[in-house]
Amino acid sequence: MHPGKIAALLERLDTEQRLTLWQQIGPELEERTLHHLSPSLRAQLAGDSAEASLAASDEPGNSQLEAVRQALAQGKLKRLGKLLHRMHPAKVAGLLEAMPPAERNRAWSMVETERAGKVLTYLHDEIRTALALELDPEDLIAATAQLELDDRVDLIQALPAKLGNQLLHASSTAQRQQLESMLSYPEDSAGGLMNADPIQVRADVQAGAVLRYLRLLERLPPQTDLLMVVDRKGHYQGALRLSELVTAELDQRVSELMHHDIIGIAVTTSGNEVARLFQDHDLLSAPVVDEHNRLLGRITVDDVIDLIREDSDRALMHMAGLDDEADIFAPVLVSARRRALWLGINLLTAFGAAWVIGLFQATLEQLVALAVLMPIVASMGGIAGSQTLTLVIRGLALGQVQKGNIRILLNRELGISILNGMLWSVVIALLAVLWFGNWGIGAVLGAAILLNLLCATLAGWGIPLLLDRMGIDPALAGSVILTTVTDVIGFFAFLGLATILLL
Amino acid sequence: MHPGKIAALLERLDTEQRLTLWQQIGPELEERTLHHLSPSLRAQLAGDSAEASLAASDEPGNSQLEAVRQALAQGKLKRLGKLLHRMHPAKVAGLLEAMPPAERNRAWSMVETERAGKVLTYLHDEIRTALALELDPEDLIAATAQLELDDRVDLIQALPAKLGNQLLHASSTAQRQQLESMLSYPEDSAGGLMNADPIQVRADVQAGAVLRYLRLLERLPPQTDLLMVVDRKGHYQGALRLSELVTAELDQRVSELMHHDIIGIAVTTSGNEVARLFQDHDLLSAPVVDEHNRLLGRITVDDVIDLIREDSDRALMHMAGLDDEADIFAPVLVSARRRALWLGINLLTAFGAAWVIGLFQATLEQLVALAVLMPIVASMGGIAGSQTLTLVIRGLALGQVQKGNIRILLNRELGISILNGMLWSVVIALLAVLWFGNWGIGAVLGAAILLNLLCATLAGWGIPLLLDRMGIDPALAGSVILTTVTDVIGFFAFLGLATILLL
Repeated sequence: MHPGKIAALLERLDTEQRLTLWQQIGPELEERTLHHLSPSLRAQLAGDSAEASLAASDEPGNSQLEAVRQALAQGKLKRLGKLLHRMHPAKVAGLLEAMPPAERNRAWSMVETERAGKVLTYLHDEIRTALALELDPEDLIAATAQLELDDRVDLIQALPAKLGNQLLHASSTAQRQQLESMLSYPEDSAGGLMNADPIQVRADVQAGAVLRYLRLLERLPPQTDLLMVVDRKGHYQGALRLSELVTAELDQRVSELMHHDIIGIAVTTSGNEVARLFQDHDLLSAPVVDEHNRLLGRITVDDVIDLIREDSDRALMHMAGLDDEADIFAPVLVSARRRALWLGINLLTAFGAAWVIGLFQATLEQLVALAVLMPIVASMGGIAGSQTLTLVIRGLALGQVQKGNIRILLNRELGISILNGMLWSVVIALLAVLWFGNWGIGAVLGAAILLNLLCATLAGWGIPLLLDRMGIDPALAGSVILTTVTDVIGFFAFLGLATILLL
Repeated sequence: MHPGKIAALLERLDTEQRLTLWQQIGPELEERTLHHLSPSLRAQLAGDSAEASLAASDEPGNSQLEAVRQALAQGKLKRLGKLLHRMHPAKVAGLLEAMPPAERNRAWSMVETERAGKVLTYLHDEIRTALALELDPEDLIAATAQLELDDRVDLIQALPAKLGNQLLHASSTAQRQQLESMLSYPEDSAGGLMNADPIQVRADVQAGAVLRYLRLLERLPPQTDLLMVVDRKGHYQGALRLSELVTAELDQRVSELMHHDIIGIAVTTSGNEVARLFQDHDLLSAPVVDEHNRLLGRITVDDVIDLIREDSDRALMHMAGLDDEADIFAPVLVSARRRALWLGINLLTAFGAAWVIGLFQATLEQLVALAVLMPIVASMGGIAGSQTLTLVIRGLALGQVQKGNIRILLNRELGISILNGMLWSVVIALLAVLWFGNWGIGAVLGAAILLNLLCATLAGWGIPLLLDRMGIDPALAGSVILTTVTDVIGFFAFLGLATILLL
C-alpha cells in the first residue's frame, strides 16, 4: 500500500485501531508514512515509535526492562507488542526471566505465536514449562512447528506427559519417528543433544558434484560446517569441511578431501564428555554414531555452549543449595518451601555443633573465655576446608584431578594447611594471650586450630571424591558435610583440650 | 623405506637408537615392519607399542595419566615421547596440568617443538607461562610460529615483557603490525579476542566469482563460516554465510545473499557482552569493527567457549578465595602464601565475631546454655544469606537481575526469609526449650534467628549490588563480608536479647 493511503487510513481510525495498524508497519514504511500525516498525529505516532525504538535498541539492558514494565503498568499493550517484536527472541527470553510471574504472563501473551517457540528455547526449564502451559495447545503446536528437532525434544521433555504427547503427535510421521528416537536417549547425552539433520555425501564423488548437490538442496541446516561421508549402508566414514570443499578443485574426490580423524561420537557419550571433545578439538559440529558406527545425527556447538554454561552454573548454585533451573521470581511460597529443606539440613549440622558444645557446659562455666574464642576455631577450619573442597570439585569437573594424582594433591594440600596452620595458630594464640592474659588458653586455641585445619583439609579432599564415586553431585552435598566436620571437630578439639589441660 | 629395510636397520642398532627410530614410525608402517623382525625383537617392540597405544587410546583418562607418570618414573622417555605424540595437544595439556611441576617439566621436554605451541594454548595462565619459560627462546619462537595470531597475543601477554618482545619481533612485519594492534586492546574485550583473518568480498560480485576466488585462496582460516562483505574503503556492510553461498545460484549477487542483520561487534565491547551475543544469536563467528564501522577482524566461537568456561569457573573459585588461573600443583610454599592472605582476611571476621561475644562474657557466665546455642544463630543466618548472595551474583552475571527489578527481588527474598524464619525459629525455639527446659531461652533464640535471617537476606542482596557498582568482583569479596555481617548480627542479637530479657 502507498504510504499516503496508509496515512489517510490512520487518520480515519479510532485510537485503538490506529495503534494496532501502526504496530504492523515496518520501520522503513513508517518513516515514509509519517510524512503524509497531519502534524498532530505525526507527533503522536512518531513519539510512540521513538520511545519503542529507543527502548528496543541495544544499549543498557536496564532501560529495556524498565520500558517493558512501564508499558505493562500503563496498559500500553500495543507499544509493548512493538517493543517485543523488535527484540531478538533471546532478549525477549531474558526480559521474561527478569519479570515477576504476573507481569511475565501478560508480556508473554503479547509475543507473536511464530516467535514464541524460539523464545521458549532460550528459557530456563521452570519458566519454559510454565509459559508453554500458558499457551493454548493449538498455539503451542503452531509456535513450535518451526523449531529444530533438538529444541522440540527439550520442550517435550519439560512438558507434562499428556501435552508432550500432543506435541509429538502433531508432528509429521517422519519427524515423529526422529523425535521418538531422540526422546529415547537421556537428555544429557550425545543422543539427547543431537539433531537428525546431517548432510550426507559419498566418498567416491567429486567436489563439483557435491557443490551441485548442495545447490539442489537450496538450504542447509543451520550451523552446517561439515558434510558427513557415509557408505551405502549408512556407516560413517569421515567428514568433509565446507570450508575445504569450497577451496578444493572441482575434480577432486571427496575421499581425498575428507578427514578420517573427525571421529563419530558414540550416541551414549555423556554430555560432559561431549563438551570436553568440542572444547579440546575446537569443533563447530560433530557426527553422532550408533554402536555399529552408523551415522545417526550431529551435534552443533550452540547446544554445547548451553551445556557448558549450565554445568558451571549448576556447580555454583548447588554449592548454595539452589536449583539452577528454577525461576528466581517464582511465588514466594514455592521458593520458601524449596529453601526450607536446605535450611533444615543445615540445622542438623548446627545442632550437631551445639550438641558438642553442650558436652562441655561444665568447662565453659568455669572458663567463659572459651565461649568467646570457640567460633574462631570452627571458622578457620571451614574456610580452609572449603578451599580444598572447591579445588577438588573443580578439578574433578575439568579432569585435573584423577586417580593418578589424588594422593599427590592430598600431600600438597596437607602441606599447605600445616604451613598455614602453624602460621595462623601462633598468631591467633598470641592474640588470645594478649586478650585474656592466659598462656594456657592461647596454647589450647593454637593446637585446636592446627588440628582442625588438618582435618578440614582431609575432609575437603575426601568428601568430594567419595560423593563422586557414590554418584552424588559433590557441589550439592559437599559443603554441608564439610561444615559439619569442621564445626564438630573444631569445637570438640578446642573444648576437649581445654577440659583436659586447663581445668 | 621398505618395511624389510627398516627391520634390518632396527636389528643392527643399539637399544637406545632402536627405540628412537621405532618411535618415529607411524602405526601402519609399524605393523608391516614387525613382520620382518626377529621374534625376540618383535615381541619387545610390539610390547612397547601395545602399551603405548593402550595408554594413548581414548578410554578412561586415569590410565593415560598413570601410564605417563609410570614411563617418567621408569625413565622410559622414548615411550613417553610416543605416548605424548599420539595424543591431541589438548589432552597433552590436560595431562601436564595434572602433574606435579618436576614431572611436568620432564614430560614437557618430550613434547615435539612443532606441537608445543599448540599445547601451550590449552593451558591455564600460570602453567602456560612457566612452561613457555622452560623452552629456549629460539624453540619458543619456532613452537609458536604456526599459532593463530589471537593465541600468540595471549601468550605474549602472559610472558615477561622481554621475552614477549622477542616473540613479537620474530614475527614477519605484516604479522607484527597486526599483533601490535591486537595487543593494544584489553585481553578481555572484542579486540583482545579477535583474529585479523576474515575473508573479505564485495557486495556487487556474483556467487560464482566468490567461489572461484575461494578456490584461488586454497585454504580458508580455521572456523570460517562467514565471509565479510566490505566496501572499497573497508567499511563492513554485512556477512555472507558459507552454507548459503554453496546453495546459491552461481549468478546471484553477494548483495542479494548477504545478511545485513549480522551486525559488527564494536572492538571495545567487553568479553562478557561478546559471550552473550554469541549465545543469544547462536553465532559461530562474528565480525569486529572500529568506531567508523571498518572491519578489523573476527571472533570465533572456540575462543568464546573458553571465555564462558573461564568466567563461570572464576565465580566458583573466587567464592572460595582461589585463583582460577593458578597451578593446582604449584609449590606448596607458593600456594600456602596465597591462601594465607585469604585465611587472614577471614580471621578478621572471626575475631569480629569473638569480640561481640566478648562483650557479653558476664551474661555467658550466668547462662552457659547461651554459649551452646549461639552457633546455631550465626549458622542459619550464614546459610540463608549465602543463598540470596549466590542468586544475586549469578543473576547479575546472566542479566536476570537489573535496575528494573532489584526491588522486586528484594521483596521476594525478604518474603521467603520471613516465612522460613517463622518456621525454623519456632522449631528451633521448641527444641531449645525441650533441651534446656527454659522458655525464655527458646524465645530469645527464636527471635534472634528471625532477626538474623532478615539481616542476612538484606546483606546477601545488597552486598553484591554494592560491590558490583564499585567495580569489585562480588564473588570474591561477597561471602567474607556476608559472613561478617551474619556472625556479628547473629551473636549480638542473641546475646543482647538474652542480656536484656533473661538476666
